[in-house]
Amino acid sequence: MCKSFSAQRSLHASPSALGGARAVRSPRGARQVAAATGQAAAPPTTMPSYKLYYFPLPGRGEVARLCCAVGGLELEEVRFPFDQWPKYKAIAPFGQCPFLEVDGTFLAQSAAIDRYLAAEAGLVPKDAFQAALADQAYNLCIDILTPLFDTFKVKDEAERIKAREAVVAGPLKEKLGYAETLVAKAGDGFVAGPELTYGDLHLFHALSTIISGWMDGVPKTALDGFPALQAHRNRVASVPQVKAFYEREDNQDDMRQAYKPNA
Amino acid sequence: MCKSFSAQRSLHASPSALGGARAVRSPRGARQVAAATGQAAAPPTTMPSYKLYYFPLPGRGEVARLCCAVGGLELEEVRFPFDQWPKYKAIAPFGQCPFLEVDGTFLAQSAAIDRYLAAEAGLVPKDAFQAALADQAYNLCIDILTPLFDTFKVKDEAERIKAREAVVAGPLKEKLGYAETLVAKAGDGFVAGPELTYGDLHLFHALSTIISGWMDGVPKTALDGFPALQAHRNRVASVPQVKAFYEREDNQDDMRQAYKPNA
Repeated sequence: MCKSFSAQRSLHASPSALGGARAVRSPRGARQVAAATGQAAAPPTTMPSYKLYYFPLPGRGEVARLCCAVGGLELEEVRFPFDQWPKYKAIAPFGQCPFLEVDGTFLAQSAAIDRYLAAEAGLVPKDAFQAALADQAYNLCIDILTPLFDTFKVKDEAERIKAREAVVAGPLKEKLGYAETLVAKAGDGFVAGPELTYGDLHLFHALSTIISGWMDGVPKTALDGFPALQAHRNRVASVPQVKAFYEREDNQDDMRQAYKPNA
Repeated sequence: MCKSFSAQRSLHASPSALGGARAVRSPRGARQVAAATGQAAAPPTTMPSYKLYYFPLPGRGEVARLCCAVGGLELEEVRFPFDQWPKYKAIAPFGQCPFLEVDGTFLAQSAAIDRYLAAEAGLVPKDAFQAALADQAYNLCIDILTPLFDTFKVKDEAERIKAREAVVAGPLKEKLGYAETLVAKAGDGFVAGPELTYGDLHLFHALSTIISGWMDGVPKTALDGFPALQAHRNRVASVPQVKAFYEREDNQDDMRQAYKPNA
């Protein structure tokens, strides 16, 4: 039921001080149609510029970064320290981060950003049901990570660790069990079929976060007993573009050591 | 990066006692390719059967139902009372509902179900960025509803109402403010352009839930001061297929009275 999109481009126009907007839209869709119909390809135009605003940690920005790394999309990153958040919050569409700037237009919500970049990167299956399986895994990972991330709201350290231990023993164990079944049935494949999707990248990120030791109360051994998940994590970590991403100089923080193969 | 999907069809095969699996896959994708390339259309085959398992209330099942109603997809529903949940939890892929059965295969996660059915119903924009805007609105609605739904965990009634009042005055007001800005800028259009998308259906559902009086502590007047949201809600409620959905005999519960135009 959707025809044009130009009317929406001004919804979140970014302040020019934060980067110049490009007027030319990605020819990606046009090229795909041209290829499918055998028509002449659209004339070459400027590819969109993608600019991600987030903290330096993996958190809710890592899947977007990985989609770009795997798909060969050029991603400009603004990684700002926590004390600069008020400055960026003022321009964040929904007062949250990450947010993405695409040719001068802002896009909020990590799930929307991740899926958009995944589509641009060729990491969303063309088949509707297969895409749904990738979405299913992606959203299961939200259920895996959210209770852990929520513990950051607990100010007292002892209480926070206690809360995390309860998450690990309860909901986390349950959700990881579902993920284990999903991945075990996929065999040597991925969560939505034989090819890597953004659902796998989110699972890889969730599992690596869990074993990173970044959150006191979540032991590095939390994946023991989930052999299919460990194998899946290693399989994704070994994808050449993923491996190269964690060899980059700006990804050498302590936490991201857990994102490497056999971490 | 995705080629085939047949290997994944057995991931969540449903027990035969709950409904026979159909062996024939939707020809939708094949037909679209055929149309785009000018090839002869695929021979007619059985369309997929969609079966949604959820409680009778709107909750996390309503967007899926609305996508089917608006897109003219036949949706079989298993609306079961709360006391039957243990029976269905045993077959739910991730121990959660709603879940969807597609030709005998289960799909979990409401966000994956909604987007899948929206795609089948033609309610996901073809343009990648416009689809991202629909996703952005869809996910903002998760942020709007989740803190309210979370209050059901508070067992003491007085405490629960107090928790909801805090949500209404704080995060809900903030999130509705972002939604108001989004919709106001869209003018007479919708959240991702001139055409209705599943992002609009989620927003309609979230706003209707809020004014339903279903949750003690959330006043029916909670949308006062958000004129663009009220207009958007009425616009979606007035879409003929939406209107017809709420005229159906099985949708005459008290809560759904708030889903009608000018409710």
